[in-house]
Amino acid sequence: MNSLTQVIAAVSTPPGKDGVAIIRMSGEGAFEIADRVFFPISGRKFSECMPRTQIYGNIIEDGERIDDVLATRFPAPHSYTGEDTVEIGCHGGILVTRTVLEALLRAGAVPATAGEFTRRAFIGGRLSLTEAEAISDLLEAKTRDQLRLSGGDARGRLTAKIAEIRASLVSLMSSIYARIDYPDEDLGDFSDGEVRASLYNIKVECEKLLSTYRTGRAISEGIDTVICGKPNAGKSTLYNLLIGEDAAIVTDIPGTTRDVLTSSLPLGRVMLKIADTAGIRDSEDMDAVERIGVEKSRKMIKECELLFAIFDISRPFDEEDRLILEATRSVNVPKIALLNKADLPAVIDESAFTGFDEVIRISAKCGEAEAVQKLSNSVNRLFTDEKIVIGQDAIISSARQHASLSRCLDFVRAAIESLDLGFMQDAASSDVERALGAISELDGRSVSEEIVSDIFSRFCVGK
Amino acid sequence: MNSLTQVIAAVSTPPGKDGVAIIRMSGEGAFEIADRVFFPISGRKFSECMPRTQIYGNIIEDGERIDDVLATRFPAPHSYTGEDTVEIGCHGGILVTRTVLEALLRAGAVPATAGEFTRRAFIGGRLSLTEAEAISDLLEAKTRDQLRLSGGDARGRLTAKIAEIRASLVSLMSSIYARIDYPDEDLGDFSDGEVRASLYNIKVECEKLLSTYRTGRAISEGIDTVICGKPNAGKSTLYNLLIGEDAAIVTDIPGTTRDVLTSSLPLGRVMLKIADTAGIRDSEDMDAVERIGVEKSRKMIKECELLFAIFDISRPFDEEDRLILEATRSVNVPKIALLNKADLPAVIDESAFTGFDEVIRISAKCGEAEAVQKLSNSVNRLFTDEKIVIGQDAIISSARQHASLSRCLDFVRAAIESLDLGFMQDAASSDVERALGAISELDGRSVSEEIVSDIFSRFCVGK
Repeated sequence: MNSLTQVIAAVSTPPGKDGVAIIRMSGEGAFEIADRVFFPISGRKFSECMPRTQIYGNIIEDGERIDDVLATRFPAPHSYTGEDTVEIGCHGGILVTRTVLEALLRAGAVPATAGEFTRRAFIGGRLSLTEAEAISDLLEAKTRDQLRLSGGDARGRLTAKIAEIRASLVSLMSSIYARIDYPDEDLGDFSDGEVRASLYNIKVECEKLLSTYRTGRAISEGIDTVICGKPNAGKSTLYNLLIGEDAAIVTDIPGTTRDVLTSSLPLGRVMLKIADTAGIRDSEDMDAVERIGVEKSRKMIKECELLFAIFDISRPFDEEDRLILEATRSVNVPKIALLNKADLPAVIDESAFTGFDEVIRISAKCGEAEAVQKLSNSVNRLFTDEKIVIGQDAIISSARQHASLSRCLDFVRAAIESLDLGFMQDAASSDVERALGAISELDGRSVSEEIVSDIFSRFCVGK
Repeated sequence: MNSLTQVIAAVSTPPGKDGVAIIRMSGEGAFEIADRVFFPISGRKFSECMPRTQIYGNIIEDGERIDDVLATRFPAPHSYTGEDTVEIGCHGGILVTRTVLEALLRAGAVPATAGEFTRRAFIGGRLSLTEAEAISDLLEAKTRDQLRLSGGDARGRLTAKIAEIRASLVSLMSSIYARIDYPDEDLGDFSDGEVRASLYNIKVECEKLLSTYRTGRAISEGIDTVICGKPNAGKSTLYNLLIGEDAAIVTDIPGTTRDVLTSSLPLGRVMLKIADTAGIRDSEDMDAVERIGVEKSRKMIKECELLFAIFDISRPFDEEDRLILEATRSVNVPKIALLNKADLPAVIDESAFTGFDEVIRISAKCGEAEAVQKLSNSVNRLFTDEKIVIGQDAIISSARQHASLSRCLDFVRAAIESLDLGFMQDAASSDVERALGAISELDGRSVSEEIVSDIFSRFCVGK
């Protein structure tokens, strides 16, 4: 990262040829640098032109005109970064864009590093860390719900909710400290009961926000999902059906799929990170490759968050089906049994499939849309809270946010426990202080450089 | 193409994820459409906000906020198209950009077709056709000279020069017609001599501008160049040396290159569209594949604009070298003989290589930079006029421009010839009229729909 005293510049639009490219420059001195290379047609100095107004002029370096552009200056603090910012819209050719950027660099700017504009906005207090994370998610959004989850309203709600929890903790802290430091002053009636009530409210708020994580994560990151079943039960047919293309080779030959195929796809509101695995069986006639595939399948089943176990009910329940049932029972995640080939006469009774959250009869070869709809309903019921309104409610969606908030909740619970055990308020105060530390991590007021770097490194250079 | 009464919209930045994306909308009614989905934070109606000013607000559709954006309105005629134009800068995610565009389309805009914004600028008289062509070239520019050739200054000079020729023809036409229509009026002294002088001036201007084509085309389009030589003379080594990577497989085995490899690369100011061909030989032991390769080589030699013939002077001049000399002599384009392996004792005298524009001793295996420099100097001397200042002088660079201007010159010459043969001015007038027609084609005032469509189809949708 560059020093904050430097003016950073980068192309903020994707690489490639199109009508327009945007180059941004931010930092104290950005207007002076712009004055060296940008000359408004009006003959006025750019730094003296109306702010926020698109000014037509030429980029000229060493007397040579590079391009005619529209440039806008955004004086601090009314810019994305909060610093003096210049935005230049030039013709969107690859070389012309690079040449304009190079002129700015030669005039005194330095190349921005990944996410540096947003990082400056964060450092300058224009954005909380959760808002920066949401903007990163917004740029990556592939479904409408991901867009809602990272959009402006949701960003604002989460920031406001965290600020609210934080304010409650601060107010509680200062009351406790005031009573400790000035025991003789009449600082109002702040009894242990009231401290406990306040802590309890904070605990409820934390729990409520934490409970949104399952939904937020399912929409944003996606659910690690594994399709398992005995060889030739119809796993690859289901996989192809869900991802909507012929990604997995489907044959009647058991053991066709050997590699683990994975794909990311939306299903209803959530994303599935779905893996089609080799059929699990235990047979003498497996070759080395199939054996490795089966081992991989077993490992993935142990590590997934959602299991689709597919059974062919047109054939008798056999030892291989038993192996699948056994494998699924050993993991404690939502499981859906898919009874395949339901269009053929069933020779297995549904009662054989116990221990599943849902049992869905499907026929992967016909009535496909209906089967996908059923599966979608089940998964969305299992992983999202329908009461949560995506895009309106405060929702956490990243592991980092979940970890900080969980830590905050742990300390709040510890503080309540101290009071329950009859300890004095000052015993609880250290826990309250740690809870405040955790929430400061969440909104980025106090967070390690490492975490900040990790978050901003996910951005592109121009953001 | 959409009707001119429709408001067109498109993403004007390249596809992909980055900090910002720009969506443009143009046409009468664009502000009203924007008002339906864009809501400034200030609470004011966008259509009533200051023009040319970036306004912060939200894109909202059916009560749901899609993104927070900066939008600018450019009232006609002060916009790129000359129509009312709206520019929206949204977060540069793929889905968010598409969703904002879709909101505009649902609010009444129609998707722009390729080049439609620039086409509207042309139709509205904001751009001449040669300027539109230059903008297309600007977006494609890969070298600094291509940038200069298509940049604002060059665009302006060419348009001005064409306007000047056109004005001379118009003035000449009207004088001639006035004398024909009102023979008895005293319309000043406009003798045959003066008409001839005026035509002569126009002829000189056309010739001067036409003479820039060789340079313009060499820089802009590139020169079709063929490397030929007997098997194993060092063709692929030279090819790799020029393009700066190991694109062609080099071995000591004659006939290694069978396919024709082509590449586009800058050499000095010009671009070479260079082809490495199979070695030409005529032998019993060639297989069918090599035979086809040799045939292809011969065909390419006949059709190229520049020939590099490479000879290995460390080995005796043989029948195969003679075949190459013969093949090169049959074509009438600039030819450069490259005497390879000049680091080894030469067994062929340089005097054997007659009929070449340049003879350069090179050693592709050492002193490579020097060899490339020599070649570059030769090619640039052969194909560009050093008196032409790229980026400042009016230069034509497209075949279309060259054809129209040549036609104009032909008619001007025919008019001069008429006068020389003693015909009356009215005999020359029809030629002058046709010359005017040709120049109108050049600047696009009068040009077939087919040509216009062809030019704008080369643009991207957002331009």
